[in-house]
Amino acid sequence: MNTAIIVAAGRGTRMGPGIDKLFLDVAGAPVVAHTWRRFDAAPSIDEVVLVVRAGMESDFRELAARFVRPTKPWRLVVGGKERQDSVANGLAAVAVDGLVAIQDGARPCTPPELIARCLEAAGRVGASVAAQRATDTIKESDDAGLIATHLDRSRLWAVQTPQCFRLDVIRRALAEVRKRGLVVTDDTAACALIGQSVELVESPFPNPKVTSPPDLPYVGLLLEASAR
Amino acid sequence: MNTAIIVAAGRGTRMGPGIDKLFLDVAGAPVVAHTWRRFDAAPSIDEVVLVVRAGMESDFRELAARFVRPTKPWRLVVGGKERQDSVANGLAAVAVDGLVAIQDGARPCTPPELIARCLEAAGRVGASVAAQRATDTIKESDDAGLIATHLDRSRLWAVQTPQCFRLDVIRRALAEVRKRGLVVTDDTAACALIGQSVELVESPFPNPKVTSPPDLPYVGLLLEASAR
Repeated sequence: MNTAIIVAAGRGTRMGPGIDKLFLDVAGAPVVAHTWRRFDAAPSIDEVVLVVRAGMESDFRELAARFVRPTKPWRLVVGGKERQDSVANGLAAVAVDGLVAIQDGARPCTPPELIARCLEAAGRVGASVAAQRATDTIKESDDAGLIATHLDRSRLWAVQTPQCFRLDVIRRALAEVRKRGLVVTDDTAACALIGQSVELVESPFPNPKVTSPPDLPYVGLLLEASAR
Repeated sequence: MNTAIIVAAGRGTRMGPGIDKLFLDVAGAPVVAHTWRRFDAAPSIDEVVLVVRAGMESDFRELAARFVRPTKPWRLVVGGKERQDSVANGLAAVAVDGLVAIQDGARPCTPPELIARCLEAAGRVGASVAAQRATDTIKESDDAGLIATHLDRSRLWAVQTPQCFRLDVIRRALAEVRKRGLVVTDDTAACALIGQSVELVESPFPNPKVTSPPDLPYVGLLLEASAR
């Protein structure tokens, strides 16, 4: 049993005040509707759990009826304070053991083959994450705004979602995060705390997240290209 | 005296065979014409040196006449084997002491204010580079394709161009690269070899490089927006 957990509980601040990027229209539907559709359509996914902000449940039910028309079982769960709390709430709603694919709600272009390959790697290794080789040259800065470390680009990956896990692995990893009172920005970082390896699964196509206004036209072009 | 060195001698392979990304049309002109225009128009720049592949000189003269119509002195220099050799050839063509701004030919959206701020920092510190805070979560991989290091995103920067230097600093840094027989992928990495600090100058706007086909429509939107 493979469950998609779509994390759609954040608001994001880089879009500007009062703008919920998940509901911005792109290629004829809200961003998060595209994300949901992708996982509903992916052959490797059996059910979808959406983690949403309290008070947004009716918006998501309307989204389902108007834009997604899901063919697979789905459930709404209310998110928590941090991303990791939202993921934990999503995991608590998974009844049957198996694999989970945790997805950013604002990442609407993820292709089904990538979802399948990430799940396969998670079944084998315990944890995996979609990633692209860093195209930029990346430097680490010091506190004064000077370059402190020149990193080796050939070893750098920009991680995306889905981040896939065996259910027992991610539950143990997030329990460790809570025990230590940490905040982690992504779920693979939690795996490091329990010594769990994470396989990087290379995305063959762009798989961007909608973060700031200039992302939208680009995401629209990708969605329209993949619909053809 | 501030000189722009536009490195336009690479061919790039990610666009596909036989395609020279520098001459792809975007927003009504070849990519490299936009780059040149930006530096020709920047108040902080006094002259432009273009480093081009052997045999491409007439193409660039045509580019000047048809698309750029430069208002500032400019010169063509033939590039070398590696990027660092091309930069060295460009530097050899700079007659007057001062600051240099080294720019990727395929990075056509760089705003004039960013060029000015990078030059100011280079005058003060000796070296600087335009950069954006990493928006992606970046991991370092091991040889097996597993995550080896979870890097701290708040300290990570994607470096761009211009990379700006006092002329004596970059000359010394590249001499050290040659002496050690190294190949460096960016000019700030050469500074590390001579203990030269490099200041990161945050780009307020997107400043992408044309690398693969999906970049083009995005770059087109940015160029059209900045022309309005």
